[in-house]
Formats: sequence, C-alpha cells, structure tokens
Amino acid sequence: MERPIGVFDSGLGGLTVLAALRRRLAGERFVYFGDTARVPYGSKSAATVQRYCRQDTAFLRRFEPKLIVVACNTATALGLEVVAEEAGTPVVGVIEPGARRAVAASGGKPIGIIATESTIASRSYYRAIRALEPRAEMWERACPLLVPMVEEGRTGEDPLVRAAVEEYLAPIRGRVGSLVLGCTHYPLLKSALAAYMGPEVALVDSAEEVAGEVAGVLERDGLAARDGDGGIQCYVTDNPERFRSVGERFLGQPLREVTLVEPEDFFVQEQAAGR
Amino acid sequence: MERPIGVFDSGLGGLTVLAALRRRLAGERFVYFGDTARVPYGSKSAATVQRYCRQDTAFLRRFEPKLIVVACNTATALGLEVVAEEAGTPVVGVIEPGARRAVAASGGKPIGIIATESTIASRSYYRAIRALEPRAEMWERACPLLVPMVEEGRTGEDPLVRAAVEEYLAPIRGRVGSLVLGCTHYPLLKSALAAYMGPEVALVDSAEEVAGEVAGVLERDGLAARDGDGGIQCYVTDNPERFRSVGERFLGQPLREVTLVEPEDFFVQEQAAGR
Repeated sequence: MERPIGVFDSGLGGLTVLAALRRRLAGERFVYFGDTARVPYGSKSAATVQRYCRQDTAFLRRFEPKLIVVACNTATALGLEVVAEEAGTPVVGVIEPGARRAVAASGGKPIGIIATESTIASRSYYRAIRALEPRAEMWERACPLLVPMVEEGRTGEDPLVRAAVEEYLAPIRGRVGSLVLGCTHYPLLKSALAAYMGPEVALVDSAEEVAGEVAGVLERDGLAARDGDGGIQCYVTDNPERFRSVGERFLGQPLREVTLVEPEDFFVQEQAAGR
Repeated sequence: MERPIGVFDSGLGGLTVLAALRRRLAGERFVYFGDTARVPYGSKSAATVQRYCRQDTAFLRRFEPKLIVVACNTATALGLEVVAEEAGTPVVGVIEPGARRAVAASGGKPIGIIATESTIASRSYYRAIRALEPRAEMWERACPLLVPMVEEGRTGEDPLVRAAVEEYLAPIRGRVGSLVLGCTHYPLLKSALAAYMGPEVALVDSAEEVAGEVAGVLERDGLAARDGDGGIQCYVTDNPERFRSVGERFLGQPLREVTLVEPEDFFVQEQAAGR
C-alpha cells in the first residue's frame, strides 16, 4: 500500500488545508491528526506548543508517512523545527508558502497579517516575508475571537463576525495590497474579510500554496502516489462526534472515519521510550 | 502549618471564586491550580474533562489540602464525582450553591442559565434547580464567545461584548427573575449583563455562595484556620506570565507566586503509580 501523507493541527482548522491537498493530489492517502483535547494552541506558550508538536509528530510516525504537513499556523510558527527533528520525513508548514504568495500578490504595497495571539507574537510571518522582500512594509494584528466564532458555526454573513472584523481590521484597511489569513480557520470567514477590505486587496489563504509545495516535494523525491485511490483517516484526542459534524464545513465533504485516541496512552509510551 | 484549601480551574476563571473565598476566609492559606496548557474545558467531552479533573485533583493532593474547591462550572458539571472519589477530603463545587441562590433570588419567576457549551449540555444546573424546586421553569443558553472575550481583556462596556450579550440573551430577556452566571468568567461582564437584563433581574454569581458553603464545612468539621495569616500559591501548566497579568483582573489584587508545573511530569507519575 502507498505510504500516506500525515497532516496535523490543534483541531479542526487544518481540514481547510486537507481540502486543498485533496483537490491537488487526488490519488494520495491522508492521515489527519487533530489534538482536540488540548485545542487551541494559539493562546499557549512556545514551550507548550513545541511539546505538543513533538507528540503529534510521534503519533503520525506510527503510520510511516512519506511527508508531514503542519496544517496549523501556530504549530508552524512555534514548532516547525521540532517537527522537522522528530519527523524523519520531509515536512511542509503553512507559513513559508503563505509568505511567498503574500509577497507575490501585494503588488509592491504593504502586507497585512492576521493570526492568533501566539502566531503574531512569534513574528514568523514578518520574518518569512522580510526574508523574501527585505523592504516589505507590514501591518500585523492578532484576532483572538475569530477562531471561536468559526467553531461556534458563524459565517462571514454573521453580524458579530462583521463587527469583529471591522474592529480588528480598521487600522489595516486602505493600507495594504494583500492580507495574509494566518490561521486555518479564517478562510471560512472570507466573505466578511473581503467585504470589509474591498476587492482590490488579495486575501492570501496558504492552503493552495501548501498543496502546490507538497506536490513539488513529492515529485522531486519520487514519492508521488502512482495509482492510489485516496482516502482519509482522521484521529482526534477528544470528541470525534463534534469533529465529524463541525469538520464537514471545513473539509467541504462528509467525514467518515474519525477515531478517538487516548492522548495519555501514547504520550506515556513516548516518554517511557525516553524521547 | 495550617493545611491549605485547594482550588482548581481549567485556567483563570476560578480566580473570581478565589477572590470571594479570600474575602470570607481571610486567615486561610490557598493553593490554586490552573490547567492553562489544556484550557478551555468548556468545549471538551465529559470523558476528557473527567480525566483532567482526576489529574488536577491528584496534583492538589500533594499539598495535603483540608478541602478542595472545584472553581470551574464545566469541571463541576462533568467531574464533581470524579473529584470526590479522588480527593480524600470534603469537596465543594460551584453548581449546587449557584442553584440554591438562583431559586432564592428568582421570586418564583423562571430562571435563566448561561454557561459554556459543555456545562449547558450536561444539564447540571437544570437538574440541581429542579431538585430544589420541582416546578421551576428554566431558560438555558450556551454562550461560547463570552470566555474568549474576557480572556482578550474586554469588559462589559465593550461594543462587541454588548452585541454578543444581546444576541445570546434576546430569547431570555423579560422572562426570568434571576440569571445564573454559570461560568466563572462571566462576573467580569456583569455590567453588560445587568444593563441588558434590567435592574429587576438578579444576577447569580456562585462565588459568594461557594465561599459561604466552604466556611460552613470548615466550621462543621472543625477545620477552620485558627490564627493563619492567609497567602496564595498558584500553579499553572502553561504561561505563568500571562496568568499573572490577566489573572490580576480576576482576583482583584496582584498575583505574586505563580509557578509553572510540567503537566506530563506528574501525569506520568500518576499513571506509573497505577491510578
């Protein structure tokens, strides 16, 4: 059997990345891990997010993935190096691809970045964009309410979402050529963001760029599935029913196989093995 | 030295209960545990919250507390029995005392209940109130955005808070005699809740009732501190700096001793001990 592509996130958000991967790489098999018992990562410290990333990666390694996608901006911002150490396979995060797209789409104008508290505090997008375009001007803003709003089922048409977007983005509107959606939940609020920012601002959702990068790495390393028939297996650390029902909105298709894993079982095993 | 009173919560919210305990029981020493690496509990399943409650209680037992207060509505709703099994001391949760006060304050009118998703789903307030007053009519509503709004530093004067309160409480306004603030974060939004519900509705914050119940249990069991000089030690599983800075608003006084504990260290020890 083809080795799968491993994908992980703190919870549901990474399913927007998985959706893009599926569209681009129809023959590949995917194993998705969502750490729903400890979600969210976006308000937690670097040390804690790194510890979680190490454990999430160790879990995915059980499936002998050929590549691991860190489908979470906070985990990429704070933990990409830890994942790379632990993975033993190529690793693709969401920040580099998003930064590239933001620079290309900004038309030389300043770039706006919205994300969780921890991603903004890490300055990872700032640094990634600076490395590509040293003169880029940037406006950054943490938007802590947008994730819980999406999780509650609100869309871009919701009045509270519109009010929050207006408050968070007021200092950025009219100043930028592109806006990085630096959290995998935000694409679900695109209509509100686009309405407030106006049609001349490019909204940058990393998912498509990530899928392109994964396709490139698989080709380069001769790892692309030859005649696989795809498929998704999901593992979560809490509440598979909630993951299934809320997750369908993120993935854009029904989620069938969602399995609960007891986190301490495998964390303790990892610890006992001296990792 | 006097044995302390142990208090735990998923994060910061329980500090509003600790504040009431301090006012009522000035001579007592308190050990507070906030599970900030896994906060929030309010969107997680019963099985997961129960596992966390068992571990939180095991942590507090290290300090040989004379009584444990579950200062979190979700943990009380889903885990009070688990804590009682594990504690080896008297245990006081926040729901019973809140339910009693709600019945007393409602003037025979229906009772409103607002809380996290998991607390509402558990129907714990509903059952506790029914046990006291079998004919009580109730209106229940989960308000998932209020906790992240408080954590972000918003107050009852904030326009987004006002808009969210209006949306959540519209079906309840004009129908109830008392409103249970069924989450320890909500007292920080009292001004918005009071403004929308009107002066004739009693807002029920469990904290004062809990302090009264704790005082009663200590007297009954001969455990009250004789000539202690108080003091608070706090332990958190993530981000002591954030806990200290945000926590002061909850406690209403500076937080000095906040110590980081590595959760897996003690979880693994508990597991190894076959608990």
